[in-house]
Amino acid sequence: MAAANAVVVDLKFERREVDRAVGEAFRDRMVLHASDRECDLSDARYAVVWKPGPDLFRRAPKLEVLFSGGAGVDHVLSLPDLPDIPIVRFVDPSLTTRMSEWVVLQCLSHLRQVPAYLRQQRDRVWRELPQPEAREVTVGIMGLGVLGQDSATKLRMMGFNVLGWSRRKKMLAGVETYDAEGLDKFLSRTDVLVGLLPLTDGTRGIFNNALFARLRQGGALGKPVFINAGRGGSQVEADLREALRTGILGGASLDVFEQEPLPAGDPLWGMDNVIVTPHAASATDVRALFRHVERQIGRYEAGDSLENLVDRTTGY
Amino acid sequence: MAAANAVVVDLKFERREVDRAVGEAFRDRMVLHASDRECDLSDARYAVVWKPGPDLFRRAPKLEVLFSGGAGVDHVLSLPDLPDIPIVRFVDPSLTTRMSEWVVLQCLSHLRQVPAYLRQQRDRVWRELPQPEAREVTVGIMGLGVLGQDSATKLRMMGFNVLGWSRRKKMLAGVETYDAEGLDKFLSRTDVLVGLLPLTDGTRGIFNNALFARLRQGGALGKPVFINAGRGGSQVEADLREALRTGILGGASLDVFEQEPLPAGDPLWGMDNVIVTPHAASATDVRALFRHVERQIGRYEAGDSLENLVDRTTGY
Repeated sequence: MAAANAVVVDLKFERREVDRAVGEAFRDRMVLHASDRECDLSDARYAVVWKPGPDLFRRAPKLEVLFSGGAGVDHVLSLPDLPDIPIVRFVDPSLTTRMSEWVVLQCLSHLRQVPAYLRQQRDRVWRELPQPEAREVTVGIMGLGVLGQDSATKLRMMGFNVLGWSRRKKMLAGVETYDAEGLDKFLSRTDVLVGLLPLTDGTRGIFNNALFARLRQGGALGKPVFINAGRGGSQVEADLREALRTGILGGASLDVFEQEPLPAGDPLWGMDNVIVTPHAASATDVRALFRHVERQIGRYEAGDSLENLVDRTTGY
Repeated sequence: MAAANAVVVDLKFERREVDRAVGEAFRDRMVLHASDRECDLSDARYAVVWKPGPDLFRRAPKLEVLFSGGAGVDHVLSLPDLPDIPIVRFVDPSLTTRMSEWVVLQCLSHLRQVPAYLRQQRDRVWRELPQPEAREVTVGIMGLGVLGQDSATKLRMMGFNVLGWSRRKKMLAGVETYDAEGLDKFLSRTDVLVGLLPLTDGTRGIFNNALFARLRQGGALGKPVFINAGRGGSQVEADLREALRTGILGGASLDVFEQEPLPAGDPLWGMDNVIVTPHAASATDVRALFRHVERQIGRYEAGDSLENLVDRTTGY
């Protein structure tokens, strides 16, 4: 029997973590697991999804609100048969804090030459390397949503000079910002480029040869560094490998890839000054996600507006 | 001919960096290099030193003020024939910022399991590891001088829970602090111990088996982590290696050692979850040092009090 107050859960996260969180959430509702192929979803009005199955919308035709399990929604917007219903993104302090931890860690790692010092440690070499200070290095952040803004604040506090870029101009205290037309100027001043962009038609493949070539050469780190924790689809990896090989880029930290998992044969795993993490920069706390969904369903059923709604024309 | 207004420079730093900075400083004074054995230092009133030669004070008997080239002064206080003159420490935003860069980098590296992820990268393994958030981890800082206070502020801003300890109680906004009597309680709540202590009779060998055993076991990182950027003489490395081997400690980041350079045969170089840097956490900007010395000599000659004076009874 299908239940109208039910919530469909279709989250491609670690199963045990989802199960544990389900155990503590949605006390007054049925929870229907889409992974159970026999489960009747036909009356369900809500679904919480991360990379949902392709037949979800055929199985659940009465959905009224779709909740993304993360900050990105490209995994939803690209689905066939996506119904025209509100899509709500997940924005949460825990997602934001974790992302900023990773971004600050990577910026500091390149500033403080962690890859070089680790090679020295492996070879048991005691040698101090020349060391610029954070304020001599300019970090340019592309993408000034909640994640980009929090990273900017924390990087500034660590002493970095910070610039911001977003398609539409945003104001940020203490940070010079640029919009679409200012991209050239933004890139020409950037030593460390941080990508925190959503994947949209406008950002697909944006991190390519032409863009890398416009970053500042000869800054305090010598060569520019590319850091991406947004979406792998935004980077052209053939160009990225080439830029690292030819020295247009001096290093990179990559959490996202065109194909995930990154194939074992990919040269990026073994390149000098390249730090690879397995799409682990931030991670949804499933319990926090379900609390957010409960809150939004509460608002929806009380006739209030949903928060963090996705704009389908911009794609985020 | 010796000159009374001369400044003796005896800095065991990179020679080229010192020479370049000398070129820009002390325009109205003679600069005497102690490394020149023929140089007559007999009338000089000021000396800027880092690990000075053992005969400095015999060669320069008329010194009136001694300037340390760094935050620590153990390299001066341990000298034979040290005259009873004021000793001024070097405190500078650039020293402080760099130290905090290193401390935050190391805390984030252990939080975000950098050693484990680097091993996975080397083996081309794509696997997300369980990930606590900064607020679930308590960093305890021993030493609440300018460096410790700045690190505390920045670690808090990154989301860590932060405790502070100093011999004499200090108040710090947003940070619970402990003094000598509260050491047990402080250690029992600490997951990541950061050492930023000066080397004194009271701190020599303070980081030993007995202390490591009192750190919290079973916190969000599983086992406690030890980070030291103060002085190598504060740690008992035999105990440290043992604690890492037996799992009393789960990891360490070490910038200072009992013997520097760390001998190539030392097991610390190759231990799991141990990050070694060659006393490079912070580094004196020699130009900033000379500006500070000029300012203090100006105050001294105008009859004003010297700043950042060392208290010889406490040793810092």
